[in-house]
Amino acid sequence: MDNPFLVEVTRGNLVESRHRGSVSVVDAEGATVLSIGDVDRRVFPRSAVKALQAMPLVESGIADKYGLSDEEIALACASHSGEPEHVAAAQSMLVKAGQDAGCLECGVHWPMGEAANRALAAKGGSPTALHNNCSGKHAGFICLACGLNESPKGYVSADHPVQRSVREALEDITGACHTVEKSGIDGCSIPTYAIPLPSLAFGFARFGTGIGLPGEGRAAAARIRKAVARHPFMVAGTGRFDTKLMECLGERAFVKVGAEGVYCGAFPELGYGIALKAEDGNARAAEAMMAALALRFLTLSEDERKTVGALAQPVLKNWNGIELGQIRVSPELQA
Amino acid sequence: MDNPFLVEVTRGNLVESRHRGSVSVVDAEGATVLSIGDVDRRVFPRSAVKALQAMPLVESGIADKYGLSDEEIALACASHSGEPEHVAAAQSMLVKAGQDAGCLECGVHWPMGEAANRALAAKGGSPTALHNNCSGKHAGFICLACGLNESPKGYVSADHPVQRSVREALEDITGACHTVEKSGIDGCSIPTYAIPLPSLAFGFARFGTGIGLPGEGRAAAARIRKAVARHPFMVAGTGRFDTKLMECLGERAFVKVGAEGVYCGAFPELGYGIALKAEDGNARAAEAMMAALALRFLTLSEDERKTVGALAQPVLKNWNGIELGQIRVSPELQA
Repeated sequence: MDNPFLVEVTRGNLVESRHRGSVSVVDAEGATVLSIGDVDRRVFPRSAVKALQAMPLVESGIADKYGLSDEEIALACASHSGEPEHVAAAQSMLVKAGQDAGCLECGVHWPMGEAANRALAAKGGSPTALHNNCSGKHAGFICLACGLNESPKGYVSADHPVQRSVREALEDITGACHTVEKSGIDGCSIPTYAIPLPSLAFGFARFGTGIGLPGEGRAAAARIRKAVARHPFMVAGTGRFDTKLMECLGERAFVKVGAEGVYCGAFPELGYGIALKAEDGNARAAEAMMAALALRFLTLSEDERKTVGALAQPVLKNWNGIELGQIRVSPELQA
Repeated sequence: MDNPFLVEVTRGNLVESRHRGSVSVVDAEGATVLSIGDVDRRVFPRSAVKALQAMPLVESGIADKYGLSDEEIALACASHSGEPEHVAAAQSMLVKAGQDAGCLECGVHWPMGEAANRALAAKGGSPTALHNNCSGKHAGFICLACGLNESPKGYVSADHPVQRSVREALEDITGACHTVEKSGIDGCSIPTYAIPLPSLAFGFARFGTGIGLPGEGRAAAARIRKAVARHPFMVAGTGRFDTKLMECLGERAFVKVGAEGVYCGAFPELGYGIALKAEDGNARAAEAMMAALALRFLTLSEDERKTVGALAQPVLKNWNGIELGQIRVSPELQA
């Protein structure tokens, strides 16, 4: 089954580039609300499931044992821009577990945020693993290891107790089998498991509502959702889509980007979970698709519609501020 | 007509993302050598036609009047990384025409090259229009304006003598009508005209061979090709695809990237011109497609095949150097 065109990028009067994609919206009972494109194809969720990967940390009571703050729990779900607040919170999580940045196995890269990148260069600095956009998730993994009385060493391996626990949590909440044959290695060196979009959407419907989860799971999901809604800056950063959308909508929308054009999310008040992928892996398309779903399903105020609308159909300008065209979503997605 | 899948991005044993595209290869008589996908759809060539846009500067004798060097002529065809050599050459071109950076109307952005970007930040600098990846093309436009005894002011407008001259050159070499209705504004504020891929490919077949061009045009095309082949660093920069491919193949391949997944090029010894577009605008797909065409059509040494093969099917690694997957082109493109 072919994926339809869901996003167009225009220039002048013409369409310059087009993105195809697939979308699944499912409720917490597993009923399909919306299905577009080839949703049976397995998708690597990448960073879009970080909130689900943080469930064992919170559900086990280990987050509380180490006194992790809401900011730090939000950072455990983050693909952050490497801004000073992100780096400090990752460091703080490690200190609370009696560890340091030397334990991080996510690898080193310059801050994803352009301003943070140049600010670090301007002060003659160089990046550490704390600047890696996944450092909060990894700091959470290290807390989990320590709380389980396991050595954090090798915590990125599929057979370490941390990743076994994370995989079980993903299987429990999505109901989908996570197998080695359908796995790959993520940018930060942990395993990522490809599953169909409806399973991801179902997992997020349950994460967004707590329906079908045991008591501790329900409480953990609520705690994570609240932490992120209170600190949307911590899950992304300055000017980023996830931060802007959740600053606008608070607890009404949980959204999380993944690499290669993936988005997952939940609209708790409707009981909906969402998973989508731009076929070509492009983030601009995935963002527009996610914003379009918020416009479609949520009842928004005029101000909220304006903010979310600008994320769904951004105007494109050049270096001189001249309007060139726009990104726009298909009628099929808006309907 | 649907565009077929031409590039896949794998992770583990699975395909994670897929790119569709269209390809046209045409000879200097206009005969079709290869046609894949919807080649009738108009495409904005963006920066992929910078070498054709530089033709009036050289053909008119103005490049010689101002004593432009080969490096500077190559820079006039560049989407450069804003490295110090690029900035200095753009500055030098302006000085030769008695102008300065204040005349540039391309807008200001931080260097496209990450290392150059951070190096500028590290020394407390801030970017100027000279760092704009199009500054060489714009310096060439300013030289053209001055050589024509026109004020450079407003040289980015479609009705300025510079852009009229550039549009005529594009129409002459491609044989395609360049109309206002099918135009848009480019990132650097000049007009860009959407035409079908076979017209672009035909233009590059003529640019690569001189066939069908008047004497001055033939000499200008040869001069530009030679300048770029001698200084492939000047058209792109450190680690960039165009630089690496032309460092490897010299005058045997002229290639130039454009934004939104466009590539144009020529294989002069075969008389072929090439134009392609990744449907979704993705550069990694367009690069792989262009490298695959070089492998397919050119007779290469073992070393050359290795270099070009690595550009066509790059291995993807993460921040820890772990192999994650690869980019690979379809059999249809390799055949």
